[in-house]
Formats: sequence, structure tokens, C-alpha cells
Amino acid sequence: MTFGSIATWRMAHDGIVSSMELLGQEGTSQDAVEKIIKTVEDYPYYKSVGYGGLPNMEGVLEMDAAFMNGDTLQIGAVAGITDVSHPISVARKLSKEKFNSFLVGQGATKYAMLNGFERKNMLTNRAKKIWERRLEEINHHHLNPYDGHDTIGAISLDSFGSMSAGTSSSGLFMKQPGRVGDSPLSGSGFYVDSDIGGAAATGLGEDLMKGILSYEIVRCMAEGLSPQEACDKTVYSFHDKLTKRYGKCGAMSLIAMNNKSEWGVATNVEFTFSVATTSEEPQIYLANMTKEKTTSIEPITQDWLDAYEKRIKMPII
Amino acid sequence: MTFGSIATWRMAHDGIVSSMELLGQEGTSQDAVEKIIKTVEDYPYYKSVGYGGLPNMEGVLEMDAAFMNGDTLQIGAVAGITDVSHPISVARKLSKEKFNSFLVGQGATKYAMLNGFERKNMLTNRAKKIWERRLEEINHHHLNPYDGHDTIGAISLDSFGSMSAGTSSSGLFMKQPGRVGDSPLSGSGFYVDSDIGGAAATGLGEDLMKGILSYEIVRCMAEGLSPQEACDKTVYSFHDKLTKRYGKCGAMSLIAMNNKSEWGVATNVEFTFSVATTSEEPQIYLANMTKEKTTSIEPITQDWLDAYEKRIKMPII
Repeated sequence: MTFGSIATWRMAHDGIVSSMELLGQEGTSQDAVEKIIKTVEDYPYYKSVGYGGLPNMEGVLEMDAAFMNGDTLQIGAVAGITDVSHPISVARKLSKEKFNSFLVGQGATKYAMLNGFERKNMLTNRAKKIWERRLEEINHHHLNPYDGHDTIGAISLDSFGSMSAGTSSSGLFMKQPGRVGDSPLSGSGFYVDSDIGGAAATGLGEDLMKGILSYEIVRCMAEGLSPQEACDKTVYSFHDKLTKRYGKCGAMSLIAMNNKSEWGVATNVEFTFSVATTSEEPQIYLANMTKEKTTSIEPITQDWLDAYEKRIKMPII
Repeated sequence: MTFGSIATWRMAHDGIVSSMELLGQEGTSQDAVEKIIKTVEDYPYYKSVGYGGLPNMEGVLEMDAAFMNGDTLQIGAVAGITDVSHPISVARKLSKEKFNSFLVGQGATKYAMLNGFERKNMLTNRAKKIWERRLEEINHHHLNPYDGHDTIGAISLDSFGSMSAGTSSSGLFMKQPGRVGDSPLSGSGFYVDSDIGGAAATGLGEDLMKGILSYEIVRCMAEGLSPQEACDKTVYSFHDKLTKRYGKCGAMSLIAMNNKSEWGVATNVEFTFSVATTSEEPQIYLANMTKEKTTSIEPITQDWLDAYEKRIKMPII
């Protein structure tokens, strides 16, 4: 039986590698998705997920996450949770609840504490410095404060044919307290059905939730489209529709995998992702929208990776 | 040009009547939806929306609401907001924000205060008494605490051909603090596109968000199905799917209206709703699922209305 994982952004790669080891030893897609996302949540140099994520305008790091079981369609989600090391693990536990499976704000944090999850100050000194510097720029130069919304979204298929999806994000840098993006919203941030496949999103949550694109991609796959066809059709037609109706369309990048471990992506900005299957070694790719509204996908270059590494670890003065 | 409004539950009726006056005077669908929902939010005897709504397990009344503009697809939403007289109006204002259009918890309440919305203690003495009595029942008789999730969901079409949708709910009685249902989640609780039509949901939010049914109904209408065909197909097939995959399916009732003011509903429990169009006087109906998985719809009887009136105003001892 074929298995595999796909996840958003270069940052997902180490987790993708680990997930393949796990899936190769008859691990479940649920464990694989949680593994991918926890790895990203733990890494201090990724500024938009978990530890090291950038805070809201008041300097508080609020996080969103969701988990979906493609067999039972169970969903767990948190939004605006604070001081918890692994929001994805809280979301996974919540997915088993019949009631109260989506919790926000202090209620989410309280649930995590009462259920034995690790409490951790998730705001690194580096993130605090970046926030302080930005606050000064906003106050003195009236810059647009919002920036960065690189959600980790992951989909896994295991050797038993089960699929899962998950997301985790600290949301928009400098967001208003309590702001929620698409990441914890089923249909928009993620959707998965083991009989078909799954999809997940990253980008401007405010616009992604206008389109319900993750659900729509899964639906298109159910109609027989390949993951790549489903992504292209869904993302580029919605990009055009929203531009026409709303006058603009924020960044949106979608990934998908079906239950044969075929995968696809579509994006209206430069977008990296990592994917591995039983027949493809773990690989980071760079994706872009073409003039013909299709997706160009090429393996990442060492130059790109070197520049990225340098950028995320650049000293903050 | 034809216009009309449809909304969930008997409680929506007075608002439906008002919305038709407004739409008949060239009012907008946005004003009509807000009017319907504000009317329900204000009425103290409706236990699941706004003033008079039942609180969470800690005795705090937390509310969810959303607003969607079917022309631009703009969405505003709040979850876990407290002490605000009209969550729907906060959601409508948020729908105009490019960023930070979905706010939860204290962030949502703070936004409302900073933007001039009326602060109000939304917990009535009656609701507090019901809560105290239930708390005692739970502690002494170990009853299942959860009950009641009658969201107001409304869709309007105006004489200019524009459509809007909105929802407002105090959620599950005795919910965990911070619990969010489907009401503020686009695709699940509501969806509207003026080129097609709109849909809204009420029922067990935890299960509704597994199905993305409001979006799916709108999509089916785009494919040419009537609102009634779209509701029947979407709701009953998902009811069967979730029962098969998850072992059970909570209450779910969906309403829809297309941009010709044709309407439909489907439900897996006894469900009342109110609807009016240029060719149909405002009327409350009673809907049920038939054995053949279609929807039986009949005008409400005076006996039903009398019993309802008595029930919601019954003294709390």
C-alpha cells in the first residue's frame, strides 16, 4: 500500500522526513500529521508557527491549530490559545470530543492545562525583539503592520489507507488580539476524507475563508480530478472571482494529496512545500503561478536554501 | 425585481416581517439580515441567541455571530464575545475589515467596546436561574449537560439582486468556556454568493463543521439545483455519511434561498422556520425529514404556536 505526506513551506521538510520513517513502520496518518506539525512548532526560527512565532499587536503570542481525522471526519480546533507548546496536540485531543471540540481564547488554554499539556512561554527573545522593532516602525513610519502568515498545513496517508490533516499557525504578525485566520476553520484551512483525499491552506486567512478552498479541492478530487487539476481549478478560479468581486485577492497557497498518494499544489505567490511518498524521496519544491493559470513546480535549489537559512537566522539588532 | 428573506426557527418570524417592510422600501439585504437577527438577539425569551441566551458551564454568556456580503464575499465573525447587545452588528462591521475580520474571546469584546457598540449584561435573571437549576441536576443526577443549539441563521435577497447571510448564537447550553460551534464558520454555519444564493445552518455545531453543508448547498444551487433539491441532497446524504463514518449524526437543519427568491430547507429533526418573498406572505412552517429522505413542510398550526409560547415563558421555579 502506498503512503505519503505533503506539507506547506520549506519549514515542513524535517517533519516530512520523520513522518515517512513513521509511516514506513506502519505508523498512522494521525501520528504522522502530528509529528510534522510538532517539529515545526518546536523550531524557534520559524516566525509564524509555535515556539518563536511572532506575537499580536499587544505582544502576546496567540496560536491557532486544527486536526481532522479523515476516517471519521472528526475535527478538533483551537484559536487564540497561549502558552502551550503544541497546539496541534491539543487540537488532536479535542477531535475526540463529541461536544466542545473547537475552543478559543482562555477556554482553549484552560482545557490544555487541565488535560496535562505542557505549559511553555512560546515567545522567544528573538520574536519579542522583532515585535518591538516593528512597533517602533509602525509608530514612527505608519507602515502597514501586517505581515507573515505562513501556516504549517499537513496531510498524510498511511499504509492502512487512512488520511489525516492538520494545521498550526501563530497567525498574522501584529494581528489584533483574538484575530483568527483560516487555519482552525474546516473547509477553509483544511479538509480530509480518507475515501478521497485531503487539502490544506496557507495565506491570508481573511480571504481564504471567503472561498472554502480546502473543501472544494477535496470535492473536485471526489469528482475524479487529480490533486493537481483540483488545486489549479479551485485556486485560480477563486483568485479571479475574488479579484473581480472584492477588488483584490490575498496570498493563497493550497496543497493536496489523494488516497493514492498523488499530490498537487496551487498558489498565487511564490510558495515552497515538501512532499514524500513511497515512490518519491522527500523533496522541497518551489511553486509559482504561471501566466496560463497553471502551477510551475521545480525542486528547490541549494542557493535558495542557503539564502533562506541566512534570512531566518539573521541577527536582530 | 423579486426579494425575500428566510430564517431559522419560529423565533425569526417577527424579524422576517420587519425585513420585508425594509426590503419593500428598497432596503438592502445587509440591513434586512441584520434586522432579522437583531430582533431575535433582543428578545429575552429565546434561550439560545443574544439577550436571554443560556450561559456556559461557568455561568458566562458567550456568543458567536457572523455576517457575509454576497456581492463581495466579505465575511465578519466573532466567537466567545461577551456583554455586547448585538453580536451580529459587530460581525457586520468586521466584514468591512481587510485584516482581523474574525475575532474571538476578549479580543472580540474589546473591539466592540472600542468601536462604540453598546455594552450590556446579556445574562437575564431567568437564564441564570435555568443555569443554576441545571448545574444542580448535573451535580446530583449526572445528566448529560448539553442541550439547545438553536442558532438564528438568516438569508435575504434585496430588490437590487444583492444577497446577505448572517448567524447569531449563544451556542450549546453548559458549553465549555470558549467553545465555538458552526455559526461563525463560513461554509459550515453560512455561505452566500449574490450570483447564486445563500444557505445557513442550525444544529450541533461540532457535527455541522464536519460537513461544510452551507457551502455545499450554495454550490449545488450553482449547478442548477433548486434550493429544495440542494438542501435535500446535501443534508440527507451527509446525515447518512456521518452516521456511517462516525457512528452518529447530531441535529442539523439547513435553510437556503437562491437569487430568484426560491427557497428550501432540509433537517434531520423537527424544525421550524419563517420565510417571506414578494409572492408569499410571511409564514412560519414546520419541517421534518420523511422516510424517503425528503422534507415535509407544512404551515405551523395555532396549537403549536400556543404551546411554544407557553413553553418559552414557563415560570422557572
